[in-house]
Amino acid sequence: MSVTSVSGGITAPAGFRAAGIAAGIKTSGAPDIALIVADAPAAGAALFTTNQVQAAPVAVSRGHLETSCGVLRAVIVNSGCANACTGDQGFETANAMAAEIAGAIGCPPEQVLVASTGVIGVHLNRSRVLAGCRAAVSALSRDGSGAALGIMTTDLGPKEYAVRVETPSGAFHVGGIAKGAGMIEPMLATMLAFLTTDAQVPPAVLQRALDEVADRTFNAITVDGECSTNDTLVALASGASGVIIDEQSYDALVSGLEAVARPLALQIVRGGEGATKLVSIRVTGGESRDAAVRAAKTIANSPLVKTAVHGADPNWGRLVAAAGRSGARFAIDRATVEVGGITLFRDGQPFDDRAPKAAEHLKQPDIDIRIDLGTGGSGEATVWTCDLSAEYVRINGEYRT
Amino acid sequence: MSVTSVSGGITAPAGFRAAGIAAGIKTSGAPDIALIVADAPAAGAALFTTNQVQAAPVAVSRGHLETSCGVLRAVIVNSGCANACTGDQGFETANAMAAEIAGAIGCPPEQVLVASTGVIGVHLNRSRVLAGCRAAVSALSRDGSGAALGIMTTDLGPKEYAVRVETPSGAFHVGGIAKGAGMIEPMLATMLAFLTTDAQVPPAVLQRALDEVADRTFNAITVDGECSTNDTLVALASGASGVIIDEQSYDALVSGLEAVARPLALQIVRGGEGATKLVSIRVTGGESRDAAVRAAKTIANSPLVKTAVHGADPNWGRLVAAAGRSGARFAIDRATVEVGGITLFRDGQPFDDRAPKAAEHLKQPDIDIRIDLGTGGSGEATVWTCDLSAEYVRINGEYRT
Repeated sequence: MSVTSVSGGITAPAGFRAAGIAAGIKTSGAPDIALIVADAPAAGAALFTTNQVQAAPVAVSRGHLETSCGVLRAVIVNSGCANACTGDQGFETANAMAAEIAGAIGCPPEQVLVASTGVIGVHLNRSRVLAGCRAAVSALSRDGSGAALGIMTTDLGPKEYAVRVETPSGAFHVGGIAKGAGMIEPMLATMLAFLTTDAQVPPAVLQRALDEVADRTFNAITVDGECSTNDTLVALASGASGVIIDEQSYDALVSGLEAVARPLALQIVRGGEGATKLVSIRVTGGESRDAAVRAAKTIANSPLVKTAVHGADPNWGRLVAAAGRSGARFAIDRATVEVGGITLFRDGQPFDDRAPKAAEHLKQPDIDIRIDLGTGGSGEATVWTCDLSAEYVRINGEYRT
Repeated sequence: MSVTSVSGGITAPAGFRAAGIAAGIKTSGAPDIALIVADAPAAGAALFTTNQVQAAPVAVSRGHLETSCGVLRAVIVNSGCANACTGDQGFETANAMAAEIAGAIGCPPEQVLVASTGVIGVHLNRSRVLAGCRAAVSALSRDGSGAALGIMTTDLGPKEYAVRVETPSGAFHVGGIAKGAGMIEPMLATMLAFLTTDAQVPPAVLQRALDEVADRTFNAITVDGECSTNDTLVALASGASGVIIDEQSYDALVSGLEAVARPLALQIVRGGEGATKLVSIRVTGGESRDAAVRAAKTIANSPLVKTAVHGADPNWGRLVAAAGRSGARFAIDRATVEVGGITLFRDGQPFDDRAPKAAEHLKQPDIDIRIDLGTGGSGEATVWTCDLSAEYVRINGEYRT
């Protein structure tokens, strides 16, 4: 099996068309609608936000995925408004979006998922978004590169990626687009990501692979520890390549999905609000995988760690203190802290004379931090985060209206 | 019973002397040693950081409090160095500080507690700090106002407070000093607070009262969600007033301690790094007190909430989203969000037209946020936090050496 990157994104796999258009939801006039359509019923799988407060499109999509038994035709997305905390009116609008697309492409409404991103608690203009849905259907194309633009908020640029996976039984493609932690206006940093493949795979297997891949990619990144009301990850499999995924080729599907999901996830972190650095935090020696994840996420979200990285300050005490308050067991006497391959703390002893060398590493755009929790356990995890800059405060502190 | 504020701080109660001197631990030459001494063996109680990584002075003080069965004579404190992650050498230095004070005032070493604050992972200069201990003993006085200076790092000013409590059986005093989230050099924001009273109270009762009061004061504040390796809260009771605390007067002791602890705690938040606003977050309608605390703390530590408050942005969606990801049960259809007494969300409906009025409130230095979680439960909690400013990033992002 080999995985090689190819050009394009969401429509690199066969059997899909996509479009991105401007419907006037954003006052800037930038694209604010994206539509992804499978030519025929496709296998679908999805993950949604774990926040108890879930936007109307999330609730509608959850229901549709269940009702359709994982058979999907389309995903309709708008940016510029989250359609969250908008009461019955919001649900009606999300349902109307699905119905509009279903009518236009000829499928039951439950075969259409809906996703939104933008400010919370503001009503989505229904006539405008429905006109946008119709315009998007007219704009569908095999090129489909506009879709990556239609889901953007203040992302620095479109995020798309695609690969070709060669297996003994033939080749298939995986493609994807994502939007990250940037906003039109200060609002929750919603993450949306959509993956397609032309492999042939039943919905349940696609869901299993998506869960596995998300755990190591989209669920392993953080910008500010905030979990949005709208986070949505969808995968669609058209089967158009004719390559059937079975037990033997399951790993190829996972590899293909991960090969697309990982660069998209890292692009989200790199493009985080005010971010100037991508920080990889590798935790080993945890009592369990969960313990390692907990320690890595606590470090990744620590404002003191993130400001230290921003200022290229090799203040490893902050790493130790964050690990110590994470709830994961931490054996300080056998713990190790490395920054850029330089050991700053081991066996209970600081090596403060090495700090200037670590500071040099921290000036780079890609930062490597490794912590061994010292418990002797085999739990490990990698989490990616970005630094915390004054620009983050500026972006999120400016008055919204 | 009546509680009235009086001038002074840690030595306002009878039976205590204190001092603050400069020992050269801080390169700036500012005071960096504080000493509090009871004239005779006093009842003692303490709370320490819950971080698994605990500085040497914390480990030494825990042991001394246990060995002495809560009978204490003194607390010796240094600022400028946390003496954390400093191996055996650090423990020896912390023990030497207690022994030095014990020898000078004539008591067993286990009757002396030790606290430190400053950068982690740097060795505390032993000869310098022991010379400082001796100088502090010589400088002890009933005035004792220098102690509040000796524990400061980059606090904007000394934090001290004292009250007189009148009870049917006589009057007693409570005094206190604290240091908060400010630093000499970027390091963990250690909180230290010391309370004294001249009421007569057994150690176990003092500990119970201290636990109760800390829960509503020092444990109900946050600046950045970081838990230091050195956090220490100590209470000493000299009994010099002759007022005996029994079941009937226990509430008077709690009221007195809380009347001092609360303004000190709020001063710590108001003086948080880069803080420009004090934010009170009141959560009601929780399934339990724990649920309400969890929701309030998640909101209080949300970078998006803190930047919105900084920018006077009435972005209540961030409050709802933070409550929704806190783990506390949250019934969005019956939840309420109020900012400065203005209802912005109720019964699943936003009231976005009221946002400008809420924005006016957010421009004030004292912010009032109230959330009802809508579960119908009686759990409630109040947590105080500050805003997140670019100045926080500047303070914590500058290179340490």
